[in-house]
Amino acid sequence: MSKLIECIPNFSEGRNLSIVEELADTAGSIPGVTLLDHSSDANHNRSVFTLAGSPDGIQEAALKLAAKALERIDLTKHTGEHPRMGAVDVIPFVPLRDAAMEECVEISKKVAERIASELNIPVYLYEESALNPERKNLAAIRKGQFEGMADKMKRPEWSPDYGGRTPHPTAGVTAVGARMPLIAFNVNLNTPDVNVAKSIAKIIRGSSGGFKYCKAIGIKLSDRNIAQVSMNMVNYEGTPLYRVFEMIRTEARRYGVSILGSEIIGLSPAKALIDCAEYYLGIEEFNYKKHVLENHIWQ
Amino acid sequence: MSKLIECIPNFSEGRNLSIVEELADTAGSIPGVTLLDHSSDANHNRSVFTLAGSPDGIQEAALKLAAKALERIDLTKHTGEHPRMGAVDVIPFVPLRDAAMEECVEISKKVAERIASELNIPVYLYEESALNPERKNLAAIRKGQFEGMADKMKRPEWSPDYGGRTPHPTAGVTAVGARMPLIAFNVNLNTPDVNVAKSIAKIIRGSSGGFKYCKAIGIKLSDRNIAQVSMNMVNYEGTPLYRVFEMIRTEARRYGVSILGSEIIGLSPAKALIDCAEYYLGIEEFNYKKHVLENHIWQ
Repeated sequence: MSKLIECIPNFSEGRNLSIVEELADTAGSIPGVTLLDHSSDANHNRSVFTLAGSPDGIQEAALKLAAKALERIDLTKHTGEHPRMGAVDVIPFVPLRDAAMEECVEISKKVAERIASELNIPVYLYEESALNPERKNLAAIRKGQFEGMADKMKRPEWSPDYGGRTPHPTAGVTAVGARMPLIAFNVNLNTPDVNVAKSIAKIIRGSSGGFKYCKAIGIKLSDRNIAQVSMNMVNYEGTPLYRVFEMIRTEARRYGVSILGSEIIGLSPAKALIDCAEYYLGIEEFNYKKHVLENHIWQ
Repeated sequence: MSKLIECIPNFSEGRNLSIVEELADTAGSIPGVTLLDHSSDANHNRSVFTLAGSPDGIQEAALKLAAKALERIDLTKHTGEHPRMGAVDVIPFVPLRDAAMEECVEISKKVAERIASELNIPVYLYEESALNPERKNLAAIRKGQFEGMADKMKRPEWSPDYGGRTPHPTAGVTAVGARMPLIAFNVNLNTPDVNVAKSIAKIIRGSSGGFKYCKAIGIKLSDRNIAQVSMNMVNYEGTPLYRVFEMIRTEARRYGVSILGSEIIGLSPAKALIDCAEYYLGIEEFNYKKHVLENHIWQ
């Protein structure tokens, strides 16, 4: 098996699907890289792409996609529920097969340097690539969003890691980094009241006292007139999906609200879902490596 | 990838673990064959082995294991909750990778012929290998069990497919066949009353009006003093695990009984479990091939 790196660029466009198609075409044109999935949300006004490829191919793809986003997305005209600061908002690299985290950190730095120098977009390094602890957390970097970035970047502590201290006028600022796999997991509530989702998000996210490996915000899905708890599960073994799901159900009950359903955006490791089956079926002495057929076939 | 056939011999010994170890050593000694799993249950007094190997290797393994079972297991002294008719009770072959059902049928016939001629154990072909429709269903073949086989085999319609019309005095009769993968799924109830498990088994199994792809019996787990619904799920897409699980919960309520937990014996395809996660988390527009990471990595 050859080395495989995952890259999950998030673009600030989820409504104009012809732009999304152009991005998909760009992703599909890079040798050695496969576009595994892309998913657009009109409420978030955001698209999440999932690519996998060789170390060289994946860098090339990230750069070409950033250039395409710069060309086609204008953040001065962007509105949407999801926080964002750049046309390509964030570019994480994840070790998928036979690759180490250190390699993903190296790749992220090379890509960050080229985005700054070739596209004139300032870049912050985040998560495993962060050069100081204050920049590990993407939410801290993005706070203030596109509209607040010009002021924020003047402060010495928010000088970018690459590029000048002014956001690109239309493409803003990008965060690039290496991280472990995460699962984008959203839970939809049968209420139009976004404050219910926001209250629940605050309860379950680690930063305000909830589950350590859960990041959560509450947003409104205008097209369905419902509220959503939108999460990044950054360590599904430390904080399993079923646990936040059941806690959301429990907290929603305070408001007379119930769960409509959930969403997986992009990809999930099989084990994160099988852990949920194990919980709900109460499987005794379950052992993922032993009991799941595929673990024996694909060794 | 090379051809891979699965073989899941069921032995009528789940208490004397030194015999089980001898069987495991036998399975482990065949070139080109891997013993993926073995699981013994004292109440069932039965052990289920899961092997995978090349077409030639797997035939050799099945024959060597049948010979070892003949040598070490005496059915005249066997008691247990699970119905049985042979020392090696049943030997199914399952296409696992790059192999067709027809190849498994061919393998089953060669193994059946050799068990009859070399070990003097009569053999019935079942499931996909069955030569007539009455012999497709293992439960029909096994009805009467070891103790009733001598009489049953005298009837013209129960003449075995290979070998003579008398059971082997200590090793009985064996069923050999090819089939699709099945999941051995047991649900434990918080009651010592086996009749509750038997009533529920009757409700959920296809043969008496329940779920088409579910075979079920009710048994007693004496060591834990509880009853169990013991199932073979022969098509987990047609009858998903969560559906029988929830129906067992619903029916158990009549008796004031609840579910303690469940068991997967041997191996389960990842999708069978992920389908359950999809149900319990209410994941909207879930697509197994698209959303599960491993489907993209291992192609």
